Amino acid sequence: MKASSPSDLLPAEATLIKRMVKGDDTAALAQAITLIESSRLDHRESAERVLSALMPHTGKSLRLAISGIPGSGKSTLIERLGTDLTRDNHRVAVLAIDPSSVKSGGSILGDKTRMSQLAANPKAFIRPSPTSGSLGGVARRTRESILLCEAAGFDVIIVETVGVGQSEVTAASLVDLFILVGLAGTGDELQGIKRGILELADLVVINKADGDNLLPSQQAATALKSSMRILGQSIDPSQPDSGKGPLSPEVLLVSSLNGYGFADFEKIMLERLDTLRRTGALAHKRSAQSGQWLQDEIDRQAVTLIRHHPLFSEALHQAQDAVAKGVKAPAQAAREAVKRCLKS
Amino acid sequence: MKASSPSDLLPAEATLIKRMVKGDDTAALAQAITLIESSRLDHRESAERVLSALMPHTGKSLRLAISGIPGSGKSTLIERLGTDLTRDNHRVAVLAIDPSSVKSGGSILGDKTRMSQLAANPKAFIRPSPTSGSLGGVARRTRESILLCEAAGFDVIIVETVGVGQSEVTAASLVDLFILVGLAGTGDELQGIKRGILELADLVVINKADGDNLLPSQQAATALKSSMRILGQSIDPSQPDSGKGPLSPEVLLVSSLNGYGFADFEKIMLERLDTLRRTGALAHKRSAQSGQWLQDEIDRQAVTLIRHHPLFSEALHQAQDAVAKGVKAPAQAAREAVKRCLKS
Repeated sequence: MKASSPSDLLPAEATLIKRMVKGDDTAALAQAITLIESSRLDHRESAERVLSALMPHTGKSLRLAISGIPGSGKSTLIERLGTDLTRDNHRVAVLAIDPSSVKSGGSILGDKTRMSQLAANPKAFIRPSPTSGSLGGVARRTRESILLCEAAGFDVIIVETVGVGQSEVTAASLVDLFILVGLAGTGDELQGIKRGILELADLVVINKADGDNLLPSQQAATALKSSMRILGQSIDPSQPDSGKGPLSPEVLLVSSLNGYGFADFEKIMLERLDTLRRTGALAHKRSAQSGQWLQDEIDRQAVTLIRHHPLFSEALHQAQDAVAKGVKAPAQAAREAVKRCLKS
Repeated sequence: MKASSPSDLLPAEATLIKRMVKGDDTAALAQAITLIESSRLDHRESAERVLSALMPHTGKSLRLAISGIPGSGKSTLIERLGTDLTRDNHRVAVLAIDPSSVKSGGSILGDKTRMSQLAANPKAFIRPSPTSGSLGGVARRTRESILLCEAAGFDVIIVETVGVGQSEVTAASLVDLFILVGLAGTGDELQGIKRGILELADLVVINKADGDNLLPSQQAATALKSSMRILGQSIDPSQPDSGKGPLSPEVLLVSSLNGYGFADFEKIMLERLDTLRRTGALAHKRSAQSGQWLQDEIDRQAVTLIRHHPLFSEALHQAQDAVAKGVKAPAQAAREAVKRCLKS
């Protein structure tokens, strides 16, 4: 296998790449993301050439995921965090993963109008979620978008996701640090944080810790910390240590409204990233993520190959027929359909 | 393609099939489920032969999914529902889908000890969730287990799933009726029901409507019905009508503790199924599910084929190397690895 050399690229691709790595050209970045989001076969091939050529310019950002249930104030929090970071001369890109409502296809997240201040900031780039596709497809496009943002000179990438289950697991597999946004509920409860998701978190940020809500937020933080201690003891000791210890996310109080706690939040976040980097844990994590990504891509390519095979529709039709007549179980019918395509 | 004839079967498979279709042999059923859960290649081939031979004996049950957050009292509800149904001479099988905790691998659902009365009932069969594998893998094994239970003479199949997101979507794709179990929260809130999941539901059952909790449960039911009316109006009218209208699940109050509401619940459930059957909606739904299943199986077979290709490890190694060196994007490296396997 040889690397993509400039000569493999179409002239339009070479121009796009030149504009992107020059920096400050968010129009070029937006165009490249549109290219990788396209499902047209020629666009896909073009996207892969562009990505391969950009690979040497990637990998140098801090990659964060910020997740929380609807209403937890993620957008306002990202707006404040992003604005603070640009003030410290970072360039910040925000990408959304939105597991759209299964039946109605509606979008849970809105778009960049939610973060009007950050959207108008020249050091920031906000890209709403692709509006269609499976979570697997969204994950692939987000992974590729992270690389494109890095090549375009963004050094902090924030992946925003809605806390509804599987999407957090996906988001966590794409980033260096996973930040969970919660809210104090009634009494000392914490709203919208599930144990399985807690296990993914590096930081838990209790938002809206302001006014009448400050005391309940403090109580919720205390309760969460003590239940994490208890849960932490019941974790299977045979599990490999991820380097942060089981269930050891830091719990912080912030108010996106008045800025309370943000200095600490940002300091702790950057310190965590620094520790990950110094200990080699970051390199290890990214290498594992990259291996998984490659495996996912291989699976996807295998599926695409069969679905686009010239004999596929005929083989599928025969298989459907056999299943409908009750003479073959779907697994057997599928196996035979795939074999038929590949023998020809 | 020809159907599996008895001559294709190994003697042990023929014996297993004979025992299963005779009925009343839950040991044979359990053995068959263990076979389809195995990941050994020879077991898989055997499982497919057995399933194909059993296909003519499948499809005649009522397939239900029952979903709810942990603590909603699903098990007690299923225990009572199952016991009532066996009293009316139904044979009831309970299968669990358990999206295990991602990192710790722990099981959220316990096992059949949770439903001790039903487990001891000769007309019932309870099978805990497979303890490992992706949600996709669990879905496939559950689909196949449904067919095996039907072939063994069970005429009501209950798929139990924990309300944590994607697993409900999976469960809904396997059954005729999706039943959501909720609880009254503080005031007129309903705990643990998310809009996306509500869209999947045919029936919403508010459990623990007893004692001091009866009034809050009634308030929660009223609030849910009125918010469903509002949500229903905002649903995209261009969406195809599923036959039940948008967001029109029936809302019922029950107490698994004292049996309140169960007669109504069971009557309405059976009426809904009867309507689905009479109008042809059930046949339509099952045919769409079966088509999706076949497509999933074809995808899975395509992936398996590449992963077991003799050149696969070498091609994967080269791809990893190219990605690690930053000379190829994962998508391009994957595409080339797959092409290399298939050209040989």
